[in-house]
Amino acid sequence: MSKLKNDSFLRALLRQPTPHTPVWIMRQAGRYLPEYNATRKRAGSFLGLAKNPDYATEVTLQPLTRFPLDAAILFSDILTVPDAMGLGLYFAEGEGPKFERPLRDEAAIKKLAVPDIGSTLRYVTDAVTQIRRTLDGKVPLIGFSGSPYTLACYMVEGGGSADFRTVKTMLYDRPELLHHILDINAQSVIAYLNAQIEAGAQAVMIFDTWGGSLSAAAYKEFSLAYLQRIIAGLTKERDGVRVPNIVFTKGGGLWLEDIAAIGCDAVGLDWTCDIGQARARVGGQVALQGNLDPVSLFAQPATIRAQVARVLASYGHGTGHVFNLGHGVSQFTNPEHVGALVEAVHDLSRAYHA
Amino acid sequence: MSKLKNDSFLRALLRQPTPHTPVWIMRQAGRYLPEYNATRKRAGSFLGLAKNPDYATEVTLQPLTRFPLDAAILFSDILTVPDAMGLGLYFAEGEGPKFERPLRDEAAIKKLAVPDIGSTLRYVTDAVTQIRRTLDGKVPLIGFSGSPYTLACYMVEGGGSADFRTVKTMLYDRPELLHHILDINAQSVIAYLNAQIEAGAQAVMIFDTWGGSLSAAAYKEFSLAYLQRIIAGLTKERDGVRVPNIVFTKGGGLWLEDIAAIGCDAVGLDWTCDIGQARARVGGQVALQGNLDPVSLFAQPATIRAQVARVLASYGHGTGHVFNLGHGVSQFTNPEHVGALVEAVHDLSRAYHA
Repeated sequence: MSKLKNDSFLRALLRQPTPHTPVWIMRQAGRYLPEYNATRKRAGSFLGLAKNPDYATEVTLQPLTRFPLDAAILFSDILTVPDAMGLGLYFAEGEGPKFERPLRDEAAIKKLAVPDIGSTLRYVTDAVTQIRRTLDGKVPLIGFSGSPYTLACYMVEGGGSADFRTVKTMLYDRPELLHHILDINAQSVIAYLNAQIEAGAQAVMIFDTWGGSLSAAAYKEFSLAYLQRIIAGLTKERDGVRVPNIVFTKGGGLWLEDIAAIGCDAVGLDWTCDIGQARARVGGQVALQGNLDPVSLFAQPATIRAQVARVLASYGHGTGHVFNLGHGVSQFTNPEHVGALVEAVHDLSRAYHA
Repeated sequence: MSKLKNDSFLRALLRQPTPHTPVWIMRQAGRYLPEYNATRKRAGSFLGLAKNPDYATEVTLQPLTRFPLDAAILFSDILTVPDAMGLGLYFAEGEGPKFERPLRDEAAIKKLAVPDIGSTLRYVTDAVTQIRRTLDGKVPLIGFSGSPYTLACYMVEGGGSADFRTVKTMLYDRPELLHHILDINAQSVIAYLNAQIEAGAQAVMIFDTWGGSLSAAAYKEFSLAYLQRIIAGLTKERDGVRVPNIVFTKGGGLWLEDIAAIGCDAVGLDWTCDIGQARARVGGQVALQGNLDPVSLFAQPATIRAQVARVLASYGHGTGHVFNLGHGVSQFTNPEHVGALVEAVHDLSRAYHA
């Protein structure tokens, strides 16, 4: 593998000095880019895109051609693991992800098993290897997975939900069944992320998209405990180089101290947290990633620059900050506004690293 | 007016001793009750129900006939004020509220004015008077309004939104326009809530349903500042009796200290906060209302009882707690489960008031 030319992202995650604040954008390879939509059209479908390493490589690299981003993130879906477990992931036109065989009865839940990652998710590890080779050391590659609880939400509900009534009813009435699913999910996510690291991922991120829909007590028992197990089981070093990890619970700002205490390297923040207050609360224990309101990208470039300045000023001087949005970029965003964001971060952040 | 027979709700809001923790349920007069659906059918539509004081009185009283709740809340809609401003509130079948004339251009925004509450919202104050008379002192009556920012979300978007792109773009690019709307809204809400108090409301609650979608800085500038103005402008006493107020920002747990500092009597909590930690954070400055996960009502009655016990234990001994859900009760809830909740609160809370 080529030597890494820009390691600012990895260094910031490990709270080492960098010349500027590194930046990447959640969902940076996505529908706001016309070139992404063109590739998706050729692939025929979202899953056709995600399951083909050539296409996955192509779209992963697209935003890096446009913008001087400091990291690439594997193009994939958060639901590849339950798909590999045999639940049958599909995307109905104009709707979110769905499962053909959601986990609804006890017998099916008890039969759930850790999939053989090497065979069922080979298309992902192949994509990681190919992307890493194509990147040629330009920037590091991030691997990722959904969190055990977030995967369980989709697995039990059979798709997205406004209130997660089915999975939460299981949580309240049959906690042992949900714990069984979460146990299998945690084992699977560890194997999946370690396979991505083995294939070339230089950092990994766990997306806990729905942990924030839980009560404080339920979050600790049904989401955070499994995130902690995953962090403990992750490969921490590859070829003598640290592989940092990031945990992101959307809506988890209230539980920041608890998240920072599970042993992760960095914590992702949504836009509702003040990042300076968050930094004071975690006291240098972890790096922080975030947290511009994604909707601010609908504003004019001068406004975007002012909002970027606000986040940078709130974090303050020194390392340990990876700039990002507080959630994925909207498909309706003007790509030029993403460019304005990246430029503003690089430009304005130098003063904080002098 | 008759003497109040059960003042536990008002006493808890003022942090005075009570024999048990009082309980009411957000959206307690609603679609989960078959008798509500029957009245709504007779009324022809939701607005037909809300705008007719006889029907509004009937549905407000329905949950009190079923359950020994400690407060009644006016049946109305949070969008009556912008409707009175001439924006044309309507409900499309199977969708949320919408406005015929959303605020999209500068000229329309500059023309926005405080409505004459006495004429345009007479149907609300008439309902308050009639409900108060019918209650005959059984329990206190809560009046309510949407918050200036939450009203502005609907007024600018023209309805609900997944990301509030239109109103937030105004917030970022044209803050002075949004501040003008919020100024008019705040003046209107003060007049509206004081008219409800004049008509007989014994406590008032402000629902800031969408404040939690803002960044920390934007929340303070565009929502909390106006909540503070409203609290300052509210009638605090009527006929020598205190009229307590409650502020509820859904998703506002991160900003609890700031909310508690605006001078309100009580703060509503959604279910993501630990209520014991919240109590420690506000240090006896305000009462707290909440905060059971509404989805826990889909669990079995024994489970509901255990979850109620958990919230009560987290709050701990002493006064200053009004039990409620962390958000409105779902229309798919079994009414018997609401009964189990109310019974559990009354039964289990006595030990905390000994």
